[in-house]
Amino acid sequence: MSSIEETIAAMARDARQAARVVARSATEVKNAALRSMAAEIARSAEAIRAENEKDVRAALRAGLPAAMVDRLTVNAATLAGMAAGLEEVAGMPDPVGSCGPSWVRPNGLQIARMRIPLGVIGIIYESRPNVTVDAAGLCLKAGNAVLLRGGSEALNSNRALAAVIGRALEAAGLPSTAVQVVPVAERAAVNALLQQEESVDLIIPRGGEELIRFVVASSKIPVLKHYKGVCHVYVDEGADPAMAEAVCFNAKVQRPGVCNAMETLLVHRSEAARFLPAMAARFAAAGVELRGCPETLRILPGIVPATEADWPAEFLDLILAVKVVAGMEEAIAHIAAYGSCHTEAIVTRDYERARRFVREVDSSVVLVNASTRFNDGSQLGLGAEIGISTSKLHAFGPMGLEELTTTKFVVFGSGQIRL
Amino acid sequence: MSSIEETIAAMARDARQAARVVARSATEVKNAALRSMAAEIARSAEAIRAENEKDVRAALRAGLPAAMVDRLTVNAATLAGMAAGLEEVAGMPDPVGSCGPSWVRPNGLQIARMRIPLGVIGIIYESRPNVTVDAAGLCLKAGNAVLLRGGSEALNSNRALAAVIGRALEAAGLPSTAVQVVPVAERAAVNALLQQEESVDLIIPRGGEELIRFVVASSKIPVLKHYKGVCHVYVDEGADPAMAEAVCFNAKVQRPGVCNAMETLLVHRSEAARFLPAMAARFAAAGVELRGCPETLRILPGIVPATEADWPAEFLDLILAVKVVAGMEEAIAHIAAYGSCHTEAIVTRDYERARRFVREVDSSVVLVNASTRFNDGSQLGLGAEIGISTSKLHAFGPMGLEELTTTKFVVFGSGQIRL
Repeated sequence: MSSIEETIAAMARDARQAARVVARSATEVKNAALRSMAAEIARSAEAIRAENEKDVRAALRAGLPAAMVDRLTVNAATLAGMAAGLEEVAGMPDPVGSCGPSWVRPNGLQIARMRIPLGVIGIIYESRPNVTVDAAGLCLKAGNAVLLRGGSEALNSNRALAAVIGRALEAAGLPSTAVQVVPVAERAAVNALLQQEESVDLIIPRGGEELIRFVVASSKIPVLKHYKGVCHVYVDEGADPAMAEAVCFNAKVQRPGVCNAMETLLVHRSEAARFLPAMAARFAAAGVELRGCPETLRILPGIVPATEADWPAEFLDLILAVKVVAGMEEAIAHIAAYGSCHTEAIVTRDYERARRFVREVDSSVVLVNASTRFNDGSQLGLGAEIGISTSKLHAFGPMGLEELTTTKFVVFGSGQIRL
Repeated sequence: MSSIEETIAAMARDARQAARVVARSATEVKNAALRSMAAEIARSAEAIRAENEKDVRAALRAGLPAAMVDRLTVNAATLAGMAAGLEEVAGMPDPVGSCGPSWVRPNGLQIARMRIPLGVIGIIYESRPNVTVDAAGLCLKAGNAVLLRGGSEALNSNRALAAVIGRALEAAGLPSTAVQVVPVAERAAVNALLQQEESVDLIIPRGGEELIRFVVASSKIPVLKHYKGVCHVYVDEGADPAMAEAVCFNAKVQRPGVCNAMETLLVHRSEAARFLPAMAARFAAAGVELRGCPETLRILPGIVPATEADWPAEFLDLILAVKVVAGMEEAIAHIAAYGSCHTEAIVTRDYERARRFVREVDSSVVLVNASTRFNDGSQLGLGAEIGISTSKLHAFGPMGLEELTTTKFVVFGSGQIRL
């Protein structure tokens, strides 16, 4: 074993020990730790910003893109956001220990499922230091220990945050090893982490598609992930044009750089000639570039022709692919062929087609008459989220506290044996 | 791509298409297919047994162990069991389409989670041909397509069963590609299957630990698995001796070769001198070899001393490791150090210790005053099971129909947009 592998293996073993302590900690102890973390962040603002300065200066020297430097920078507002997030998580109900309905077998055994922590969670992410704090808070509240591996360009910031979090954990009587930042810049640390299947129960990668594909291909540990969000809105025959326009505009324009923004608009043939010109004018005013199928081009002759590459594209920008479809059948088939199982919406007045769209579209969130932008833990009422899963195992859609837990069966008997 | 890779990739794509059809099929269509499969098996008994003969003769020629040949052999009872299993699954409630509780957000959005099929499931297993039919039935009822890769020594049997199942699917109006047997004996077929992450949603390996570790290390697709069952019974201070004896005897002896049999007995120090001699006599009469810790040996001087290798061992045989412990703390620590997160039981009269054992023992099924042998989908009231998971993601414990599904969020609005 290399020294990096040894370091990571030792951290993972420490995390496994710490996870046992956190798993049986009372809710009030975990909440005290979260509030103490929030207070420590405020108290240590200067030290955190000094370390962050080092990262920012190095990033500028290395010529990283401005957007990346921006995400890396910790200022007073970032710190206040971290503390507020921790307070919010402290206020959320504790999922651990709750039982679902119980049932009794003919032999008298009483059976229930009890919600329990997952154990040790590894998070692999890119440059934002606030993920360090947000992820630590959610994992801890759900009774888990966490290993955090941020981008190497944020290492000083993350180490400073880890020190602050460690002090807060100890103040609450919890082991500081319940939240550990991997202190190694080399990529080999990620590989080593992905081999710790005896000590780590779940890996959550957050970042670009390339990072996530690397993690999935290398990990012996289960991975919760989403590659991309290619979200569709289908404007059905007979849809309320004002509602369709409002939903589509919001889905594309309100925040185009995020995974739940609309990337392709599907319009029923019978609505296209009326709906598209008004919609296109509104999009044009907002600076949205439209890329249309041949039928769209006949209605909107000035726009860019869509190529095959546009249909599965996640633009994350003010660009929208537009396709006219013959009906529900074609809309659902297009989504199945090009979508990413993320978020799809229909705008309709028809009861049967609304039911069918909800039933047949295979996405983590399917909406009727609402914007795709609602695929978000907080918007759906789950509270803070750790990410969105587009793979179906364990979690499909936004992942909140509950998705950081699992259930075990508990069985109460009076001496039953199997016959 | 090799021709094996091409074959597997094409099968996986066909399965993805078939999965879309099965996912939206009505319960009565799926049940008709299951009943038709049962009838076809009875009708084609002769053809199935003729193909199975070929496998059995080849296995005998190759000198496979008698137990393996036995598991490979299909007789009238095996066929009747397959048909009965399919009828049972047909009678179970359909999980697909049901929604949990729904809630309304302040903006009026109504939100629920709807249960949906996983999609395409790959099962990799060893020689038993009945797994082909059992797995096909459960996957189909849960709305999935399935790719079945049995042992190469059962290839003729599995092909014959696949032909029968395919006819039954078509008779019910479903695509025969919803259940496919991988028709390739080479191990490369397994590797190729594990790379189809675009078309396959879940891999379930069933077999020895070596096979399962290979699958976990090679798969880009999520894997549900259990490596082994090292199950413990802890006889607490003050436990009812008759109950403790009955539970321990049942857990060890009723069927020693299965994963939920007890492998280590932990006895509280204050009970050991009274409990162990009577228990040991009963075990001796049943042919159980005991391997004891030093303190056990002082009470039962005739038995084999346990070595360090005995504590994490899954004997799957009439062998039992026995350890005297100072109390709950040591019992729970021993289970955490050597257990496999499978099944653990306590025999106790003490309310607080029962609660603590249930809370703190990190196993998929934790029992109070009942035999470990109850870790079984049917015994716990879940109906037929596809296996037991000891990893925590998605499913922990016995996996029935529900564990072959997931949930998506469905959102009903009236034009809501995000502000």
